[in-house]
Amino acid sequence: MEIGFLGLGIMGKAMSMNLLKHGFKVTVWNRTLSKCDELVEHGASVCETPAQVIKKCNITIAVLSDPSAALSVVFDKDGVLEQICEGKGYIDMSTVDAETSLKINQAITGKGGRFVEGPVSGSKKPAEDGQLIILAAGDKALFEESIPAFDVLGKKSFYLGEVGNGAKMKLVVNMVMGSMMNAFAEGLVLADKSGLSADTLLDVLDLGAMTNPMFKGKGPSMNKSSYPPAFPLKHQQKDMRLALALGDENAVSMPVAAAANEAFKKARSLGLGDLDFSAVIEAVRFSKED
Amino acid sequence: MEIGFLGLGIMGKAMSMNLLKHGFKVTVWNRTLSKCDELVEHGASVCETPAQVIKKCNITIAVLSDPSAALSVVFDKDGVLEQICEGKGYIDMSTVDAETSLKINQAITGKGGRFVEGPVSGSKKPAEDGQLIILAAGDKALFEESIPAFDVLGKKSFYLGEVGNGAKMKLVVNMVMGSMMNAFAEGLVLADKSGLSADTLLDVLDLGAMTNPMFKGKGPSMNKSSYPPAFPLKHQQKDMRLALALGDENAVSMPVAAAANEAFKKARSLGLGDLDFSAVIEAVRFSKED
Amino acid sequence: MEIGFLGLGIMGKAMSMNLLKHGFKVTVWNRTLSKCDELVEHGASVCETPAQVIKKCNITIAVLSDPSAALSVVFDKDGVLEQICEGKGYIDMSTVDAETSLKINQAITGKGGRFVEGPVSGSKKPAEDGQLIILAAGDKALFEESIPAFDVLGKKSFYLGEVGNGAKMKLVVNMVMGSMMNAFAEGLVLADKSGLSADTLLDVLDLGAMTNPMFKGKGPSMNKSSYPPAFPLKHQQKDMRLALALGDENAVSMPVAAAANEAFKKARSLGLGDLDFSAVIEAVRFSKED
Amino acid sequence: MEIGFLGLGIMGKAMSMNLLKHGFKVTVWNRTLSKCDELVEHGASVCETPAQVIKKCNITIAVLSDPSAALSVVFDKDGVLEQICEGKGYIDMSTVDAETSLKINQAITGKGGRFVEGPVSGSKKPAEDGQLIILAAGDKALFEESIPAFDVLGKKSFYLGEVGNGAKMKLVVNMVMGSMMNAFAEGLVLADKSGLSADTLLDVLDLGAMTNPMFKGKGPSMNKSSYPPAFPLKHQQKDMRLALALGDENAVSMPVAAAANEAFKKARSLGLGDLDFSAVIEAVRFSKED
Repeated sequence: MEIGFLGLGIMGKAMSMNLLKHGFKVTVWNRTLSKCDELVEHGASVCETPAQVIKKCNITIAVLSDPSAALSVVFDKDGVLEQICEGKGYIDMSTVDAETSLKINQAITGKGGRFVEGPVSGSKKPAEDGQLIILAAGDKALFEESIPAFDVLGKKSFYLGEVGNGAKMKLVVNMVMGSMMNAFAEGLVLADKSGLSADTLLDVLDLGAMTNPMFKGKGPSMNKSSYPPAFPLKHQQKDMRLALALGDENAVSMPVAAAANEAFKKARSLGLGDLDFSAVIEAVRFSKED
Repeated sequence: MEIGFLGLGIMGKAMSMNLLKHGFKVTVWNRTLSKCDELVEHGASVCETPAQVIKKCNITIAVLSDPSAALSVVFDKDGVLEQICEGKGYIDMSTVDAETSLKINQAITGKGGRFVEGPVSGSKKPAEDGQLIILAAGDKALFEESIPAFDVLGKKSFYLGEVGNGAKMKLVVNMVMGSMMNAFAEGLVLADKSGLSADTLLDVLDLGAMTNPMFKGKGPSMNKSSYPPAFPLKHQQKDMRLALALGDENAVSMPVAAAANEAFKKARSLGLGDLDFSAVIEAVRFSKED
Repeated sequence: MEIGFLGLGIMGKAMSMNLLKHGFKVTVWNRTLSKCDELVEHGASVCETPAQVIKKCNITIAVLSDPSAALSVVFDKDGVLEQICEGKGYIDMSTVDAETSLKINQAITGKGGRFVEGPVSGSKKPAEDGQLIILAAGDKALFEESIPAFDVLGKKSFYLGEVGNGAKMKLVVNMVMGSMMNAFAEGLVLADKSGLSADTLLDVLDLGAMTNPMFKGKGPSMNKSSYPPAFPLKHQQKDMRLALALGDENAVSMPVAAAANEAFKKARSLGLGDLDFSAVIEAVRFSKED
Repeated sequence: MEIGFLGLGIMGKAMSMNLLKHGFKVTVWNRTLSKCDELVEHGASVCETPAQVIKKCNITIAVLSDPSAALSVVFDKDGVLEQICEGKGYIDMSTVDAETSLKINQAITGKGGRFVEGPVSGSKKPAEDGQLIILAAGDKALFEESIPAFDVLGKKSFYLGEVGNGAKMKLVVNMVMGSMMNAFAEGLVLADKSGLSADTLLDVLDLGAMTNPMFKGKGPSMNKSSYPPAFPLKHQQKDMRLALALGDENAVSMPVAAAANEAFKKARSLGLGDLDFSAVIEAVRFSKED
């Protein structure tokens, strides 16, 4: 099976590599072309524009960093729209808002193409391990044809109905994650500043009803002020913003998510946007003595 | 081993029953004495006052509902202080603030008694199953003598140093829990109001890095608006308040916990205080259409 | 001086009426044309499309309800763009985000037209009394030519530089207003539920350093649960959202505004969106006993 | 008329000086006795303990910094209780919680004394100018006898009924103030970081419905990062905390006040507690570039 692949950031690179390893023919494109080199070493082909990838492949997957990149790859010169046509399938696995997904869907289907949105839950490690959760919506036939690829990329694929629902589900999940991370960060800092051991807190949490892989995975490094970026804080904050905007549309008041979002914004203003989102603990921890 | 036991609420009853089942001799007292009947059927003795329990037993455990009850059992007429003396040990496993613990410690040790505070993490089910986490602090010898009882009541006992640290650790844990519950509740409501399935959200969360027993255990019933009280909302809110007060003492700003606390207060004002703390979702969900 | 006027909502009607009363020739348009009748009785002319108004008048003022209405009047069929041309001036006094203003500016100036954004601070009463504060930015010559009209509509006009700055200043002002209103509402409810007189609180506030016309004007009716819409709650909430988005762009963390925004969203979910924004007190007040 | 006066902090000093200037005989006491010197130069007498002041004067006013100081002056050795007796009046004008007021009331009246709580609204400047607002409650006869003194200290005295209501009203007022200050601070920072002039924002606010002496008085210095302490931030934060506790008792959810309180706590952690409460803007402003 031949797959086009647009976007080789942290996630895209891990995902396209997985496809290669599982015997897919993969043709990649990235804005900075040099990022394609490692993939080529593992057998990928390269194209110089998104349009060329679409032309070459019947199914193309895109993993871009944000809504404006997702739109740009489709609508700009040499973009997806120039070559999309009847029969071709385009699967956007970027995390974007539903509005962006709907715009892309309209453009693709307007040219006769088929569209699935398929944002994923999971960051660098699950991407590398093929353990993502895929939140797909849109053209059901394309979804079903793509299952062999999805099975390589993730441990489970959900089909959620109409385009937009994948984006929305992803935002809801990431909003819960962002608020949980703040809850955790506040707890670790409170323990520490109250004369308790933040490492013992990790042990206590791990034994109780709240134990979860995120706390176990990130807690020890947070206690050491280390934040290697699995999921950059600025992207987490963007997702909080988009989830709050979804709440705004539907008149859902979410004061805890709103407070968490402001904490991530404070962290951005402290220059932590490119670190892992667990670095929000620095915004909680920050004080004059530090 | 003979153990006195003061307080037979949801937690106290399950814990004293466990001691009985594991062959401890248990002498119980409860403000409403009729609540002792079931324990008596299983072999417990009863005393009519806390003082009598202390007189009879070398080690007495108390599990009261809040700081004022914890103080009252010690300081009021017929209370613990009247009979505590050299050699006797008093273990308060109520969830109280550190100040309350310190007051009790001072009074007990002032009479020659030994004191351990040992608040627990875990609610009704872990209490019944002997799977609590015990956060002990204070007299180390008493802690060590009590390990046979602790081993029946919990799956792990931490010794955290000076009196107050158990109370503080418990508050930190419960604060994280209260914020997490709000994060979860906001996510479930946002999914539902955005046209997604809140049950599918549970499946998605369960597959990801945030999966945890609390979400798995409470999510399905929250989606059915059912809140059988394992941990009453008003007690959760009290713990949020006390944790925020601990943050106040140590100048730790915790905007997410503060927002969660206000949500629990709103839930109380909606008459949900006696339901399980997961009922906070009703405060998020509440709208005119409902 | 002849002025075109697009949009006859609460604000637009009061403003165009003022221009008429001060001797301006005014040509009006409104989506629901029947709303023009009262203006016609006072001497206004009517056109059937925005394009016709632009064609007829050298300077046209628009006061629309939100960004999408502001864009639609310019870009849709029969819209402003069809007739705007060199020499003609277009002044958008709607409250919109800077991005919307910039889009309109680009389109107008692209056709040779001149553009001033001029959002106002003040609601129904100041609009009727010609006591608005005008936050203008953009084409300086057009601003200066328009001063006779601005002097009728407002008590003070600021020229703030490049297009976008008027929108931004307006959002900042309304954000402060929305947070203040929540501070006030929480105070009134806390007084009442604590057994104090909320009317006495008004007297106390009125004597102190916080005394301001908004508290004096709205407090008594808020205490009577009366909310005649001077500035609809849903518009206030929209402005909070846009101001928070401006903060997002500039990495400014604003937890108090974020909490206020969520309170306005809760009020919307309670069906209060069309009442005055002071109705947010109902979201604070709401409890089971009510 | 002879008046005892306990506590010569910022407020107490200005108030006792006013009494002296208006012909009252004043006997002062302060924990650090040297602070009495300036009053003595203006004609005051000094006692070495609170008890001596009570013994000497029929009416004694206290202005202490917080609940623990207010309690200590009454209950400690050489305190008020040792000399209070039938006929003597004690007026506590400190800002304390209702519980503290009630405790003092019970002790004073238990010895036959009369008690009025009379917290004030207004800080250094109004205290110096005799322009405070007095929120009195308790013994009505004592209130009426004290009116000559109250008329010197304040521009208006409210009698609010039973002891505790003065404390509560004060907390409500200060809570509104603390939230308003945060609303203002966020607005000033947002203006500045968005490329607008924060000074122009002051002009715009001053012309609108939100204009108030606090914004006018503190805005210009906040824009210059100058915070001479009229009302120390740590005291403002304490009042927010106590007001939130009052809300807790009465199940009033106040998310905006809670967010403001956390901002003040962050400011405390940044070492700003002794500056004016307007210094909370530094917590909003703080970013890595600063």
